[in-house]
Amino acid sequence: MLKRICMIPACRNDTDHEPLFRQESYFHWAFGCAEAGTAGAIDIDTKKSILFIPRLPEAYAVWMGKIEPPSTFAKKYGVDEAYYVDEIPKVMQDNYASKTVHVLYGKNTDSGAYSKPASFEGMDKFTVDKDTLHPVIADLRVFKTKEELDVLRFVNQMTSEGHVEAMRQIKPGMYEYQLEAIFKFHVYMHGGCRRTAYTPICASGPNAAVLHYGHAGAPNDREIKDGDIMLLDMGGEYHCYAGDITTSYPANGKFTEEQKIVYQGVLNAMTSVEQAMKPGVVWTDMQILASRRILEALIELGVLHGDIEEMMKVYLGGYFMPHGLGHFMGIDTHDVGGYLPGYPERIDKPGLRSVRTARELKENMVLTVEPGMYFIDSEMDKIIADPTLSKFVNVERLNQFRGWGGVRLEDNVIVTATGIDNMSSVPRTIEELESVMAGGAWPPARDAKPELCRNFDMWGAATKQ
Amino acid sequence: MLKRICMIPACRNDTDHEPLFRQESYFHWAFGCAEAGTAGAIDIDTKKSILFIPRLPEAYAVWMGKIEPPSTFAKKYGVDEAYYVDEIPKVMQDNYASKTVHVLYGKNTDSGAYSKPASFEGMDKFTVDKDTLHPVIADLRVFKTKEELDVLRFVNQMTSEGHVEAMRQIKPGMYEYQLEAIFKFHVYMHGGCRRTAYTPICASGPNAAVLHYGHAGAPNDREIKDGDIMLLDMGGEYHCYAGDITTSYPANGKFTEEQKIVYQGVLNAMTSVEQAMKPGVVWTDMQILASRRILEALIELGVLHGDIEEMMKVYLGGYFMPHGLGHFMGIDTHDVGGYLPGYPERIDKPGLRSVRTARELKENMVLTVEPGMYFIDSEMDKIIADPTLSKFVNVERLNQFRGWGGVRLEDNVIVTATGIDNMSSVPRTIEELESVMAGGAWPPARDAKPELCRNFDMWGAATKQ
Repeated sequence: MLKRICMIPACRNDTDHEPLFRQESYFHWAFGCAEAGTAGAIDIDTKKSILFIPRLPEAYAVWMGKIEPPSTFAKKYGVDEAYYVDEIPKVMQDNYASKTVHVLYGKNTDSGAYSKPASFEGMDKFTVDKDTLHPVIADLRVFKTKEELDVLRFVNQMTSEGHVEAMRQIKPGMYEYQLEAIFKFHVYMHGGCRRTAYTPICASGPNAAVLHYGHAGAPNDREIKDGDIMLLDMGGEYHCYAGDITTSYPANGKFTEEQKIVYQGVLNAMTSVEQAMKPGVVWTDMQILASRRILEALIELGVLHGDIEEMMKVYLGGYFMPHGLGHFMGIDTHDVGGYLPGYPERIDKPGLRSVRTARELKENMVLTVEPGMYFIDSEMDKIIADPTLSKFVNVERLNQFRGWGGVRLEDNVIVTATGIDNMSSVPRTIEELESVMAGGAWPPARDAKPELCRNFDMWGAATKQ
Repeated sequence: MLKRICMIPACRNDTDHEPLFRQESYFHWAFGCAEAGTAGAIDIDTKKSILFIPRLPEAYAVWMGKIEPPSTFAKKYGVDEAYYVDEIPKVMQDNYASKTVHVLYGKNTDSGAYSKPASFEGMDKFTVDKDTLHPVIADLRVFKTKEELDVLRFVNQMTSEGHVEAMRQIKPGMYEYQLEAIFKFHVYMHGGCRRTAYTPICASGPNAAVLHYGHAGAPNDREIKDGDIMLLDMGGEYHCYAGDITTSYPANGKFTEEQKIVYQGVLNAMTSVEQAMKPGVVWTDMQILASRRILEALIELGVLHGDIEEMMKVYLGGYFMPHGLGHFMGIDTHDVGGYLPGYPERIDKPGLRSVRTARELKENMVLTVEPGMYFIDSEMDKIIADPTLSKFVNVERLNQFRGWGGVRLEDNVIVTATGIDNMSSVPRTIEELESVMAGGAWPPARDAKPELCRNFDMWGAATKQ
């Protein structure tokens, strides 16, 4: 008997399904062009921008829409010239006498992925430089222009509103994914955000201790229970720019004493960092500052005891917040620029290893500020097993928090000349949250908590609350 | 002066963004498994099913959730056994004494894409057969089981409801994408459909003549005008199974006389086809039948004149409906099976070239029925330029329809022993549409239009209308 077995691999390929196209972020940064199959060039000497569009087959007119000439796209995207993709070598030689072509090739320090350099027929006639362009544009992308900040503010406003909608509608007995549905509806219906910037994390109870909950294997499908803490990390995407806001609150709208201590600890971390941020501040110092606030709350909670300085030396905070305090944000949620060549390298120490940049803050950087405190089984096991850590711990008390979940709060801020401008505007204090969840107004009156709601001017006439 | 130019290619790669994972459809058909990185096998002799799951790194517990052993997945997915992916060769040799491994490799006849065959370390110890498995499973997927039909009915119910929500809320002055937002919200909030089966097409006015409108280059972003005809082609996805329904109606809720003639022509095509469908009927004959109904309407409209039989000979209907009448539907929207080896081949004639299968209907096939009539500039130009076509045409009248748009109607049906079972339940007659858009009830009373609303039983207590 010949034994046979049949195997089928996992990954969508043998299909007629076409996902919705989304432009590569570097390309979008340079040209803002939404159409698939395009290429772009900038002549360094004349500063002229050139877009190359595909020559479309006749059937395009039937299936996809009217076939427009290059001039339509030149006008639409404000480039100096537009041609067909098959004209690239001719245009570059005849119109620009180009000899060297700089193509984008480099590593994304967040993911380790490499950009795919441009290639075209006839490329062998040019000297190709793969090294120069990437670090230059990557660094340019770190500093946002006024126009980019306008788009980021808009998508942050919509993202803030979407979070407020979710907290207004939540009830125990709902499913986590229904909050994702409410959020997505709001940002699309009222803000034109067709996509979210990333897969929404809608975690209830124990799931709030899973940092990237919501993925295909854990798709926000738990029924929300009375007494659960919620952790919602969701952001819209508009014109390819991201929002990335996290809110946490009790599912039933009323904080327990324990939830108050954990929540306030994370809010203290966020407030301390946001008050300290300004040009010249090193981001890793902010991580350490946040860690201190988290430890203070854990002491108040009765989970830890002893000297905070000693705890800091063994990076104890990192077991309760095993992620970076924040990251650059822009066309990508985790935007470029964390560990570019020529800037400080990653610090390979517990508590600092996950920090997404070690750079000094500078004006017009945009970052997330997202401290958190989580009770993760595997991290708690590590603490208990290590005497240098467990000596600070009330193990019985710690074990009471297994299955408790966690809290994360996340704002998106612009570094200004003197501090920050907080683009996010969601209820943050315990009083604000309990008020809004009970039907209270948001945004609050102008004089309430100004340090946490700097931008409620943007909640103007367009707002539907 | 050395001329230099810099080039950036279009396509997302240099990023930390991870799209939401969706299982390959063949894999889902066999194992129903949602997690990424898994593999599956079926022992042909013992009929035992085996799932292989990835051995996850410790950090998974922090970022993605608790690390579960293989037994959890064996139970969750009802397979006989589960192991780690790195155990594949050992399990297959020791437990099953396998010599030959059949892997999935074959062409999708809708897209031309090939499946990526499974591979694993130690595969060289086995005889690998790439040819046997694909045609067998592809043909099995054409015929739906009772359980598959239950899921398809559910997602069709939700998709129907989502369409009704959109038609209830539409108003001139809204943007097309807001209908997409309403639809997506409904199917997710009330039906748990996290994805749509394909990019929604929300076309108003002239855009209704673009068959696959709604893509990244034409993202449903037009403002809807009073007097526009609408064409909405949208479907939810649940447990990887698709819904694919199209509705058309006037944006302002009241048909003009012209809109009535075009709409009724398409509805007549749909009704004729649905009444004729049963086992033994050849799908290409249905395309011809639909074409005849479309031509009748064009005569009534004053666009065409002359003998329909003569028009049929020159495939004139194909210029007004330049797409196939329907396709298999299941885990893929365009499901497998259209032109499998051993079945009738594609007929390379105008009007039949786009038909997605030439097979005979059989019980438990699931298909879309989607006739349409469109006024597409490039197609109208072709008709006018060709004397064998233009002799049937009142050119002045035809030109009045430039920019008019089009109408498509799409149901999803199961072939039964004696006819079809229509899973879709949306207002279809002009009276029903005008009534529902004016606030009338849906579904209607049981005795209203039973031939078009066969399944309104499924609008049960759970319905929120």
